[in-house]
This record gives sequence, C-alpha cells and structure tokens, in this order.
Amino acid sequence: MNLACLDLEGVLVPEIWIRVAEATGIEELRLTTRDVSDYDVLMQHRITTLAEHGLGLSLIQKVIAEMGPLPGAREFLDELRQDFQVVILSDTFYEFAMPLMAQLGYPTLFCHRLLVSEDRLVGYQLRQPDSKRAAVRAFHELNYQVVASGDSYNDTAMLAEADAGILFRPPANVVEEFPQFPVTTDYAELHQAFLSALS
Amino acid sequence: MNLACLDLEGVLVPEIWIRVAEATGIEELRLTTRDVSDYDVLMQHRITTLAEHGLGLSLIQKVIAEMGPLPGAREFLDELRQDFQVVILSDTFYEFAMPLMAQLGYPTLFCHRLLVSEDRLVGYQLRQPDSKRAAVRAFHELNYQVVASGDSYNDTAMLAEADAGILFRPPANVVEEFPQFPVTTDYAELHQAFLSALS
Repeated sequence: MNLACLDLEGVLVPEIWIRVAEATGIEELRLTTRDVSDYDVLMQHRITTLAEHGLGLSLIQKVIAEMGPLPGAREFLDELRQDFQVVILSDTFYEFAMPLMAQLGYPTLFCHRLLVSEDRLVGYQLRQPDSKRAAVRAFHELNYQVVASGDSYNDTAMLAEADAGILFRPPANVVEEFPQFPVTTDYAELHQAFLSALS
Repeated sequence: MNLACLDLEGVLVPEIWIRVAEATGIEELRLTTRDVSDYDVLMQHRITTLAEHGLGLSLIQKVIAEMGPLPGAREFLDELRQDFQVVILSDTFYEFAMPLMAQLGYPTLFCHRLLVSEDRLVGYQLRQPDSKRAAVRAFHELNYQVVASGDSYNDTAMLAEADAGILFRPPANVVEEFPQFPVTTDYAELHQAFLSALS
C-alpha cells in the first residue's frame, strides 16, 4: 500500500520567505540556512526583523495567500491522489502554509508551528527534530511503502528513508552529492517517476 | 499541533456492504461481524458470495460511486480541514473507498487492500492488526495531539488511544459500554465537539 510524501516549498508552492522578502522589500528576509547555518539563529533573526518592521502574522498570511501554489501544482496533486495517499512533509509553519493548503484542496500537512501573540510572531515550535525522516519511519511502521519527493538538502534524509526518493528541480550541489535519486524537472516527469516507483 | 482521525463508514459515507447488498439484492452481503464474529470467515464468505453471483470489482465500484458520501459529509470535512490535519482511519479497502474519496476531495485514507485478479475478488490484505489504534500511536510519536471520531465498536480502541474521542451516531450498546465518550448526532455537533476538544 502506497503513500507519497511531498516537500512543500519548491515542490508545490514557492519558497515562502523569499516571496515575503520580495513582497515586503526587506532584503534580510532572503537569508536562508545557506547564509546562517544555525536554524535557530536564523529564525530568531527573521522574527526580530519582522517585529522591527512592524509586520504581523496577518500581513504575512495575506502575502502568502496571494503568491498561490506553483503553476500546475494543484493539478499534479489531484492526479497523484488518485494512486497514492499523500502527506506533505514540510519544515514550514502551519500559520504560513494554511492559506496555500486551501488553494491545494487541503492535503494533509505535517509541519511546525509559530508562536503568535496578538498577531505578533514571538517564537516557533518545531514538532520534533528530523521530522521528515521521523514521519517516513512512522509510515513504515504502519506498513506503507513510501515514495518521497523534495527539492533540497533538508529533504535528503526523507528521500533516503523512503522506499524510493525523487528529486524535483534540485540545485546542482544536491544533484552532485546525491546521485542515487532520479531528478525530475516538471510535474509530468514527477508524476511518471512516482508511478514508476510502484513497479 | 492537532490531528483529526475519522472513521469512514457511518461517519462520512454509508455502510458499504449494506449498500452493496441493497443494490445487488443479495441478502447474504448484509452479514456483519455481529452475525459472523470471525472477520476472516466473514470476508471469505463475502468473496465467495460475490463470485457465485458473478459480481466483479468494477460493478461493485460502480455501486459504491453511486451511493456517494452521506449528506453534509463533504462540507463537514472541508470545515474540519481548516483547523485540523485530517487522516481517515478505516477498516474498508482502497478498492472500495477510492470512488468515494474522489467525492470527498481526496482526504488521506489509511485502510486495507483487496486482492483482485482480472476484476475478480480473490482475497484481501489487512495492512496491520489493530490498525486504527496503531495509526493513532504513530501520530502521537510524531507529537500530534489526536482527536478521533467513529461510530462503532471497532472504533473504540482508536477513541481510547486518542487524546479525545467522540462518538458519532453510535448504536445504543456502544453508548452504554463507553460512557466516557461524548455522543454527537449531526455534523454541526461533531464539528463543535472537535473544536471543544482543542481547548
């Protein structure tokens, strides 16, 4: 019995922080773990930056809702759900993702949570460490065969833990470091790779 | 972080075997585990009965697709998915349930599988024993708070394992034996009980 695990940002929706940076014109929000390797330092910096600019959650949610899913993502997901049970495994936060989930037809999403006080971001709560890999392990315990797809470094543990892993539009360094995962660049290819993984 | 686990038959869709019995006029397909306590004996009897009447999977799927979800189920589910990640935990089979899942907007479904040869049912494969309880345990390991709802005896292990359990239109003997679970009789009540369980 088959389950598909999909990364969210870069696979079904744009990179959320990048788009928030673009929409608000705050360049510092473009920083990623490539620039600041300690995730907690990066997140605290993002939270402080938003506070300094007086940007609350509701405004960020509005920006996110307007960005919408990637073109073709909804159609890809609707097709995939005919052959796989789908769970989206993401390192984003529910408060950011839910406006996009509505536009994707509410697929099941496992991610993290922001701590919000009167519309102001005050912190975040990771559901668990190494959460994507842990979810695939849990699905294995439930006797599912798991096919997973993601685009970046933080997905590779999930891809390795799955019975089959597929890269979608990955950066060159990920392709080079993980030659064991097939690379796909559009939704038709990705869908085909999922179906091929079953046989 | 919150996850809702819902039973399928009796909560979102009609009892599948009962409707197949009605649509085909084969009274023996009305038998349930109340009549034949050994599930494997019951399933083998159902499979033999279908074969004797020359009924293949495609015809049964047609009957199931035509029955549709219970009135209001899709709207309830769409509302619930705004506040909870939803996973449906059922003892039915993917081959039966998928025509109904399409009509419910493809929520994630964990259930079992039929073995089919040239459109003929030849057996079934349970994903794992005590599968509803095992799924709730797995979600707990992923640090989810689980609220669960079901209608019958085979849901009570799931309701007990969850952080909160809610009965929906249960038979009298289940209400009597499990007074610890609140009883709801329509979707507005059920939705309210899910929201109340969060606080």
